[in-house]
Order: sequence, then structure tokens, then C-alpha cells
Amino acid sequence: MSSSYGENLKLTIFGQSHSPAVGMTLEGIPAGNRIDMTALRKFMTRRAPGGASWSTPRKEADLPEFLGGIVDDTTCGAPIAAIIRNTNTKSSDYEELKRIPRPGHADLTAQIKYGGFQDPNGGGHFSGRLTAPMCVAGGICRQLLAKEGISVAARVLSVGNIFDEGELCGPLDDKLFPVVNDEQGQKMKELIDKVRADGDSIGGTVECVVTGLPAGIGDPMFDGMENRISRIVFGIPAVKGIEFGKGFGYAGMRGSESNDPYRIKDGKIVTETNNAGGILGGITNGMPLVFRAAFKPTPSIAREQRSVDMKEKKNEILRVKGRHDPCIVVRAVPVVEAAAAIACYDAFLARRREINYDK
Amino acid sequence: MSSSYGENLKLTIFGQSHSPAVGMTLEGIPAGNRIDMTALRKFMTRRAPGGASWSTPRKEADLPEFLGGIVDDTTCGAPIAAIIRNTNTKSSDYEELKRIPRPGHADLTAQIKYGGFQDPNGGGHFSGRLTAPMCVAGGICRQLLAKEGISVAARVLSVGNIFDEGELCGPLDDKLFPVVNDEQGQKMKELIDKVRADGDSIGGTVECVVTGLPAGIGDPMFDGMENRISRIVFGIPAVKGIEFGKGFGYAGMRGSESNDPYRIKDGKIVTETNNAGGILGGITNGMPLVFRAAFKPTPSIAREQRSVDMKEKKNEILRVKGRHDPCIVVRAVPVVEAAAAIACYDAFLARRREINYDK
Amino acid sequence: MSSSYGENLKLTIFGQSHSPAVGMTLEGIPAGNRIDMTALRKFMTRRAPGGASWSTPRKEADLPEFLGGIVDDTTCGAPIAAIIRNTNTKSSDYEELKRIPRPGHADLTAQIKYGGFQDPNGGGHFSGRLTAPMCVAGGICRQLLAKEGISVAARVLSVGNIFDEGELCGPLDDKLFPVVNDEQGQKMKELIDKVRADGDSIGGTVECVVTGLPAGIGDPMFDGMENRISRIVFGIPAVKGIEFGKGFGYAGMRGSESNDPYRIKDGKIVTETNNAGGILGGITNGMPLVFRAAFKPTPSIAREQRSVDMKEKKNEILRVKGRHDPCIVVRAVPVVEAAAAIACYDAFLARRREINYDK
Amino acid sequence: MSSSYGENLKLTIFGQSHSPAVGMTLEGIPAGNRIDMTALRKFMTRRAPGGASWSTPRKEADLPEFLGGIVDDTTCGAPIAAIIRNTNTKSSDYEELKRIPRPGHADLTAQIKYGGFQDPNGGGHFSGRLTAPMCVAGGICRQLLAKEGISVAARVLSVGNIFDEGELCGPLDDKLFPVVNDEQGQKMKELIDKVRADGDSIGGTVECVVTGLPAGIGDPMFDGMENRISRIVFGIPAVKGIEFGKGFGYAGMRGSESNDPYRIKDGKIVTETNNAGGILGGITNGMPLVFRAAFKPTPSIAREQRSVDMKEKKNEILRVKGRHDPCIVVRAVPVVEAAAAIACYDAFLARRREINYDK
Repeated sequence: MSSSYGENLKLTIFGQSHSPAVGMTLEGIPAGNRIDMTALRKFMTRRAPGGASWSTPRKEADLPEFLGGIVDDTTCGAPIAAIIRNTNTKSSDYEELKRIPRPGHADLTAQIKYGGFQDPNGGGHFSGRLTAPMCVAGGICRQLLAKEGISVAARVLSVGNIFDEGELCGPLDDKLFPVVNDEQGQKMKELIDKVRADGDSIGGTVECVVTGLPAGIGDPMFDGMENRISRIVFGIPAVKGIEFGKGFGYAGMRGSESNDPYRIKDGKIVTETNNAGGILGGITNGMPLVFRAAFKPTPSIAREQRSVDMKEKKNEILRVKGRHDPCIVVRAVPVVEAAAAIACYDAFLARRREINYDK
Repeated sequence: MSSSYGENLKLTIFGQSHSPAVGMTLEGIPAGNRIDMTALRKFMTRRAPGGASWSTPRKEADLPEFLGGIVDDTTCGAPIAAIIRNTNTKSSDYEELKRIPRPGHADLTAQIKYGGFQDPNGGGHFSGRLTAPMCVAGGICRQLLAKEGISVAARVLSVGNIFDEGELCGPLDDKLFPVVNDEQGQKMKELIDKVRADGDSIGGTVECVVTGLPAGIGDPMFDGMENRISRIVFGIPAVKGIEFGKGFGYAGMRGSESNDPYRIKDGKIVTETNNAGGILGGITNGMPLVFRAAFKPTPSIAREQRSVDMKEKKNEILRVKGRHDPCIVVRAVPVVEAAAAIACYDAFLARRREINYDK
Repeated sequence: MSSSYGENLKLTIFGQSHSPAVGMTLEGIPAGNRIDMTALRKFMTRRAPGGASWSTPRKEADLPEFLGGIVDDTTCGAPIAAIIRNTNTKSSDYEELKRIPRPGHADLTAQIKYGGFQDPNGGGHFSGRLTAPMCVAGGICRQLLAKEGISVAARVLSVGNIFDEGELCGPLDDKLFPVVNDEQGQKMKELIDKVRADGDSIGGTVECVVTGLPAGIGDPMFDGMENRISRIVFGIPAVKGIEFGKGFGYAGMRGSESNDPYRIKDGKIVTETNNAGGILGGITNGMPLVFRAAFKPTPSIAREQRSVDMKEKKNEILRVKGRHDPCIVVRAVPVVEAAAAIACYDAFLARRREINYDK
Repeated sequence: MSSSYGENLKLTIFGQSHSPAVGMTLEGIPAGNRIDMTALRKFMTRRAPGGASWSTPRKEADLPEFLGGIVDDTTCGAPIAAIIRNTNTKSSDYEELKRIPRPGHADLTAQIKYGGFQDPNGGGHFSGRLTAPMCVAGGICRQLLAKEGISVAARVLSVGNIFDEGELCGPLDDKLFPVVNDEQGQKMKELIDKVRADGDSIGGTVECVVTGLPAGIGDPMFDGMENRISRIVFGIPAVKGIEFGKGFGYAGMRGSESNDPYRIKDGKIVTETNNAGGILGGITNGMPLVFRAAFKPTPSIAREQRSVDMKEKKNEILRVKGRHDPCIVVRAVPVVEAAAAIACYDAFLARRREINYDK
């Protein structure tokens, strides 16, 4: 079912950008896990808009209300349910979208799929707003992974053609602009400012590293870690590509240089390089799990665009109103962490079941 | 479940490289569809090894035996079940792998996950051999899509750093080396020969184009066409990256150039460019669906490699025996088509259910 | 996942008896369907407690708030989400239950399963309260079936050993005590009054009839109509048995009397009898679908009961506080209709997909 | 998907009565479990027809060939796949069934559902023959449960109106006619002989008891043990009712007599009675899990029956050819055990995952 995800967990995300609320249900979280609500709110804040020049000036109070599954901040075994009220549900801006679709958005495809009955306001169920409940679920999973010694960290890897430098070794939760090299980050911010001034937007990439995952997590074929992570990461609006370890870089390599040699180090089996991004045959090998996601530029731009009138079947010129993020990748960093945490914790939960063999 | 895929279809793939057979079950194919068995066998042959210099010299009779679901070459509504006998089940080559894992293969991760009880012979359930039953399922889905006017075509886009040229507009079923520009293909073949002579292997990319898909197929969030296709394509061994439309190229673009403008052409709504690869909000927009998958070099190479003895916990030198494809991407072309066909037909089957609204 | 149901629909039910709210998400309802909110509220009222001598005196405002999926009372294709606030969330009555489990309730099994972290208040996620969101989903499905000419009706078939008389031919929505024969209903009410006066409770059965279902709905093996309906009906607390058509009565019959003979009537194929309850091989045959569910007596009774102290491991005497329905089957009637409507509409949605064969 | 079952396991059953083979795939069995193939064959033999007066005289060699998932009789973590060749695939008897449906069979409903493209031979995918692969899967699960100290036993509880006497305390694997009281069994056999002489058939019930299940297995709402077991048991052809513990008997009881009181016995919590059949709130309480399934009489009888010509739309008289079991319940006993074993082992596998709470 399209708005649900998971094998051992089951995440369902609901709501539209301008409906009374967005929310999520999350089944399968073991009972008895204390959730640090302060940390969860802090995590949510990293995704929230406002407060920075490279983001949209809208303000949202993105704090979830838990309706079930949590008693005294502790999971009770019942599905966790949380909602976030939509306070900014002004709808008038969007009426025109059922007639003249915005290029790069889901307006046309939703119109065709739902016969014109879709909720067009603010992008409806396709809105980036839906990543807020994903962050509720992901924030919880990230905490539960941390208890097991597993950290999920992401960064802005690139904005346009400006790339971060250095290796991502752990969470950058305290950085407003999460890059390893702040000088590169400064250049990215300047590019974003310039793009905004042009009434334009720009794409980028996010890199995510999961460390501490034990070897043996994930499954062959259709439930490998790559399959699991890609299925949820493509659920983040604007993602159009994903690669693990060397990813597309592998295509130009030879086996003799791409195979990660095994070595014994401190009595443990490690690989000398990590081209595989910690995954072999879909299963973790104990090295850091590394992936990158490509984001297209925000489709909402201030400039005039060529579109059509779907009813009259004639060409039109469209000017999208409202103010929008000129570059989504900064706010996308915690969302990618959330998605990765959900996928990894879902896979991680399977491990006890499997170790059942005769000795 | 890890070896199963699908929403309206349910594909399960079973068997190991050296077990008595590999096979598949495919539930959900509507009754009354005639399967062209000659065409299916021809499709399977494109994937089969042997007969070409750039491939492995092993020979396999990859023809499926149907055990259920098909009567007089016509689907009867029951699950389709087919098996392919493994004739080459020599196991002695692989005993060592439970002790000394091959770099780049799943030997180590399977050893940890399955506590040493995995079937190591020929890669077991992780073997590329498992793509044969995927091609049975995919070959059937590709035929059923063709009946609806939908074609699924793929090509070798690159081997190492040599890229095909020209646009892929339709199936290249009759080409032994499926590229658009045969001169580039010749260069790729020469590179593969050279790599083989070096006892090495090389990576590459496959591009797939699905034309004729009506607009409105696919779903928001976790069942978008990107999610669906990536979940199955990462089930093909050696795939480490996937991108749709401009994919990673989007990251360097501005919205004003990346948004595909809408135009009316011959009374229909089309886009001037197809950066989105035919997908907006997870849903097809009627333009060709385009994606590319990155394959890592075949991990089996003739050269010595550094590995470890998992039991003794000490470093080792490994020399992988047997003969292997120096470049998997050529044989991967029909497998990518199969995967895309399964994903697209699965999504396509949902469409009747959805058009149910009050007029 | 345990709190989710469905194939073409996906229903998830969340909340506990005394959590801030109970609610549901329902994915898969086609866009463009207008929901009659007045009729839905009326349907919900049939389940609500209070107002009748045979029910609990608690009062609840069971009206749902829709948070997503519905715009202007019309489905928009996004998941439908609705919540019902719990106003009566007094928790102090139930603290003791983590120590001394109530016989016949899930207190002990939840304590063991969730390690003592379950929400014990009012039965937590096991409460009959969770049937309220099931009625939101079921009320919607029942309306959509009605549009297709399919009616879902249930009645109290028995209370204790008093049975209703006559055949159930259609909905009894307007009856406070839904039986066909009101004289028998009067006897049932008197029995319930007597049982209440005794500080006791009593069991019963509910019969449900679905008419108008076209032939060909449902699937062989594990998704037959019996499988689908039983899976959801056993999700109603206190149900301990289900039978279709003659059900257990079949066990004493001979084939020559139990087989339903076919006849042509008005140009249509019908059966002379309907022992099969409208289902053959899991698939509807066009005759009314008939099933009965057995409910155990409400486990909460005013009398002293023998229990144990789970921590001290010693015998105890328990007196359950609070006021409870002496007979749950009356309020269960719309819940059984809801469950049947969800199962039937879920199966019904598959039908368009299947009719896809070559002519 | 209709021919698939399970949460932690995934069972898919394929094949038709007269297709080249029937078979099953079973994903999710932990690696490293040794299967006793002799015991499995013996289990399969209990279901096989022939050799007894109360059964059909056909002979079948029902022994499975394993194609994958098992190496040296030990599970390797890959999906287990097994097939059983159909040797008796004579099809001519059944051609008429596409025109004149047999009362009580799925001929008419399959004809409508699959547009006449179904495989009618021997009942196709609806045949009791499909219970053979279910017994392969169930026989494996029953062995794995036995290793954990859990036994799954069933008996013929009734044939017609003759009931077995005494309590079922453990497996009756060595009895050709599995009843507790052989005198009652003798009466049942005589009744079956009489019914056969009449060219008729007769229904009955099977009772199943699972002992040794730890408390805490199963889930609330839609994945309770009742839901799980009923979903698979209704996948056995001819089952039309199921009840747990007192089942329909509960409907006539009062809470004061039906609630099972808790007591401490030998330091453990037990119930004095077991009306609940070992399940409260869908979750096991540690007492024996008890259920009964009602089977309708075999629809194939030697007598003339009233049917219709589906094409000509006129009444017809049908005489079913071939020889058939006059009473299916005897052979159904191991099938019910298989179904129960699959459901219980599937639920049992979840338990490790859940015990994850903070101490």
C-alpha cells in the first residue's frame, strides 16, 4: 500500500499539506522503550522551515501530539500514532492548479490518477509537509538505534556543483547547515542566496552514513539494505537517484580495484576500503553503511514557466505564487536520516528471529 | 519477505546456484492471457551465458518448465510456477568459501547471517543464476505490457568509461551486444577482451526506457514508480546505484532549466524535455520512463586477492577458481528489462481498481 | 502487521481505551467517492453505548474527526485518517490489573507479551473501544458497497439460548434492538436484564447477510471470502467462533442434501438452497453471503472471581469495578456489519483488475 | 496474495490437480534446522489417499522433491521449495465441467472469476490435492515446533452425528483412523462405509490441540491466534466453520461460568478451566490452544444431481464420474495439523523480536 512502509515495522503516513493534520502510525516498535521527547522535538526542529536565509520564511509549529502507543513517554506495544496540526491551511492559492499544472510537480499526474478529485492545496498528499510525520517515526527509530550503538548521520554533500569536503564520521545535529567543511558550507549558502535572488532554485545531494550496524542485517534479493533504503528514500519528494558506496563510480572501475580486501584488525574482520558501502549481497558487513541521494531543484520557482490548460487543452504561461525553499537539500538532511533510521531499525528487528539454528 | 516482490503481482524466486533447480512463482497474472513461448525462450536466451567472447564460457540450458498456472500456453488464474533445472551443480570448487570469503561477494555476510549454514556453492541464493527465473517472470510481464502497447527496452549504456551514443528508442532484442551505436559497442567489446586478458573485470551501466505507459500509473510516497523499480532492480546482483531521468545530474541544475515545461502537441499534453524520466510524484506522466542502473565489476577475478580465514582469524591470500564473466552488464540488459517489466506491469494492474469515482 | 488489515485497502487501527484518542487510517479507497456524513454518524450511533437498559450506562461522543483523505466530504485518493477523542480517560480504576489479571480479559497475556509495559487502562489496545474506528472504516465501506447495490445487514441471532426467528433479508438500521422477530427480541432483553441483576453477563451470536455481491469475488486458498471475513471478524473482541452458510451444521449432513443444486431462474443461475452461504471455493456465487459469529459473555462481571497475584505468585480474589455491558452482542451488530463491509469491499475492489483476459 | 500466507514465514502454494506438479515455497525458516525427512514422509503418508476403505482408491506417491533451501537435509536460509509430481493427470473426465458445474464445487465460481480460462481438471487450483504441499510446509513447521517442546495434534472429532469421546492429549500419528476412542472410531468407519454404499458422502469435524506454546504468542486485533489460524484453516477445501475453546458453546453461557479462573499451580499461573482455548486477546496464555473445524460433506457424490448448462442457460442433470472420498475428515486430520503448525510457528518466530524492552 503506497503510504505504508516496512516489514517488522509498519509505518503509515497520512494527511495533506492543508488538511486538518498530517500524521503517522507506526506498528511494531517493541514495548518498554522510553522515548526522549526533548531529543525528538530537537530532531524535528532540524527539519522545520524558517529561521535561516536559505529556507522558506513560513513558520510551522511541527511538534507532534501522540494519540496512542506511548504511555508516560514509554512505548506500550500498541501502534504509535501521532499527529501534527496544520495551522497554515490557506487554500486559495492553489485552486488554479487543477487547471494549469506546475511543471516539475505532481499536479498533472495527480489530476489524471485521481480524476480531478485530489486535494491540490499545497501539494496535497504529495507535499514535502508529509516528511514531518516521517521525521516523527524516524526520530524514534534513530533513538532506538542509538541505544544499540548505531548512529545515523547525514550531511549536505553538494549544492549545485559545490561539494562538501572531508569524511562524514558522525551526526552533525548541532549544525544549522550540516556540512563537514564549513567553508564549503559557506559557499553553498552564498549560492543558495544567489539562486533565490534570481527567483530560481537549485538541486543537490545528501550523503548518509550509518555506523555501528552489526554484520548480518538485511536480506538477499528484494529485501537487501539497498532495496529497503531506496524504497523509503524515494518516498521523500524530489529524490531522483540513490547510490550505495561507490555507486555510479563503480561503473568505471575494475574488479581488482573495486573489491574491498578483507583484513584482520584487532581480532575483527574488516575491509581495507569500503567501496561496497557496508553492504554485500544486500546484507551488512559491519563496515559503515554509506549512501547518497540526489535531489532535483525545488520545482516551485518565482519565474514564469510554460504550462498548459488541462481542460481547454491549450498552452499557458504560469507564475507560481507563494514563497518556497530555493534549495531543499538542507532541510532534507534530517529527513534522509529519518528514512535511513526507519529502514535500518526495521531490518535490525529481524535479527533475533533469524539466529535460531541448531548448535 | 525477502525473496518476494509485488503488490498486485507476487513474485517469489527460489533455488540456489547448485541446488536441483531454480524457479519462481508468480501470482496475480490475470487469467486468459496467451504466452508466446517461443518469444519467451528467445528472451531467456539473451540472458544465457555462452557463445560470446565477453561472457563466461559455461553453457546452460535455461529453458523453464512450467509446473502450474498455464494450460495450453494460456494463463489460468492460478499462480504461475516454473523451474529451471541446474545441470551444472559441481560443488567442490566452493567448499573453501565458508572459510575464506571472496572479496566483493556475499560469502562473509551470508556466513554471519546464516551461521555457516548457507549454501556456498556457486554463490547459493545470492548467485546471478537467480536472475534466470526473474527473466521468466519478466518475460511474461513484458509480453503482457506489449499487448497494451507498452515496450520495455534496455541497452548497455557504458562499460568502464566507454559510453554508448544516441537515444534508446525501442527494444534491441536482436542485437547480441545491445547498444545503439555499434562502433561504441565495438570499443566496449575490445575493452572487455582486454580486461579478461588481464584476469580482471569491469563495471558499467544499463539504461532502460519504458514507452507507452499511460499517465497515472504508480502511487505517492512509498509506491511511486521510482520506489517500485528500485526495490526490484537492487534485487539484481551487483547493482549499486539507480537514477531516474536526469538523476544525479539534477543535483547540479537550476529549477528553471530542470522543470519540464508542458506543451500541447497533437491535442495531447506532453513535456518539452523529459528530465523527470516520465515520473512526477511517483506517478507516470505519459512520457517515456527512463532509468539507469550502475553495476559494480564482477567480483570474481582471476587475480590473487587479500582475504581472511574466518575461523582462524588470520589474513589469507585467495585465488578464485572457475571462469566468470569479465563484465556482467551485457547479460544484465534483459534482466533489467525483466525487472522493469515486472514493476511496471504490477503497477499497471492497479489502474482499473482506481478509476471508480462518481461522475 | 497485527493492527492492519486488507489487500486492496489497508486499514490500520490505533489508540487505546484511555489514550488521548482512538483512530484509523484507511488507504486504497478510490478518489471521488462522496461520503454521506450524516449516515456515517447514524451508523456510529448504533454502536455507541448508553441509552438502553441492556447496555453500559457510560456515554461517549463517538463522532470522528477526519484529518486527511477527505475534502468537501469526498475522498481525494490520499489515505483517509480519522480520530475519535477519548473523553473518559480516568485511569485509576485499572492500576491493579497489572498485578491481578481479570479472568477472561487480555490482562495476563498482555502483561507477558509486553513485559508489563502495556497500557492496562480500560483494556488498552484490546478494548472494545477500538471497534469505534473500525466502524468509521466499515461505515464508509458499507456506503460504497450500497452504491454498487450491495447491502450488509446483521442481527442479534441469539442471546444465551434465546434465538431470533425468521430470515434476515436486509438492514435493521432503525431498530434499537436489531432482531427480525421483536417478540424474541423482547425475551432477549428480559434475559439481559435478569443477567445484569445477577451481576453476571451472557454470550450470544450475531448473523450477517451480504446481498447483491456479484459472483466471482474472493480468491482460492488463503484469500477466500471465508478467510478474509474471519480474519477481520476475529479482530472484534470476544468473538470465538465463525461459520459460513450451514457451518457446523454441515458436519452432520450428507452430500446429497448439503450440495446446493443449480437452477435457471429468470435467465440467471441460482441455487435452490444456500447451504454454502454464497461461497464456493472461497469465491462468491451470487447468492447471499451468510455468516454467524459467536461471542463469549462479557468477561467483566460484578461478582467475585478467582485470580492470582502475578508478582507474588499467590491466589487472589478479584472484584472488577466499573459498570459494563452485560451482553455485548447488541452493540456488536453494527461492528460485525463494519467488519463484513471492509472485507467485502476490499475483495470487491480486486474485480476490475482481474477481468483482463484475451477475448 | 491469495495463494500466499504468513507474516514471519511466507508460504506460497502452486500447481493444479492435473498440472505437471503441485508445490510450495516457504520463506523465513531460520537456517541451520535439520529436517527429519523420514518423519516428514511419514507425516505426508497420513494424508495420502488409498489403503483404507473410507478413502478414495486412487494411489498417489506424494513424496516431495526439494529444489532449494535445504542442503544435506538442513535449512540453509534460502526459500525452501518443494514439488510433488502429479502422475495421475488424466484430463478427459473434466471437460464437461466448464459447461455443467458440479454442485458444491468451485466450478461455477471459477468459471465466472476466470472467464472460462481456469483449469477445470480435477478441480484445478481448488483441488484437495493442493493440501499435499501444505503438508510439506506444515510437516516442517511441526518438526520445528516439536524441537521447542510444542506439539500439534488433531483427531476426527465427529463424522456425521457420531462423536469421538475422551480428551485429545497428544499426537495420534500412529493411528490409521485418528480418534481417542477406537469404539467410536469403529462406528464412524461403519457410517462411512454405509454412506459410500449409498453413493453419498458425509461431513464431520476435526479438533486440534497445540500444547507447549509459551504464553505471549500472537497479537491483538487482526493477528490474534484465532485470526491467524482461521485464515489458513479456511484455506483447506470444505472447511466452513471454526471455533476456539468453547466456541459457539460460549453463546449460551454466563460470564460467571465461562471466565477461566486463574490459579497458582506448582509456582505457575494456570487456569482452572480452558474455555478460552488457550487464547485471550488473541494471545496465548500458556494453556493448550484448542480449536475445531467443520467440514462439509465431499461435494462429489455418485448420485444424480440438479445442475445447469452455463452456456445454454438451461437446467441439466449431472452425474459426477470418478471415485471420491465419501468422507474427507479422516485425511483432513494431518492437513489441519499442518495448517495449525504453520500458523503457530509463524507467530512463534515473532517472539524474539518483541522482547526488546528496557530493563
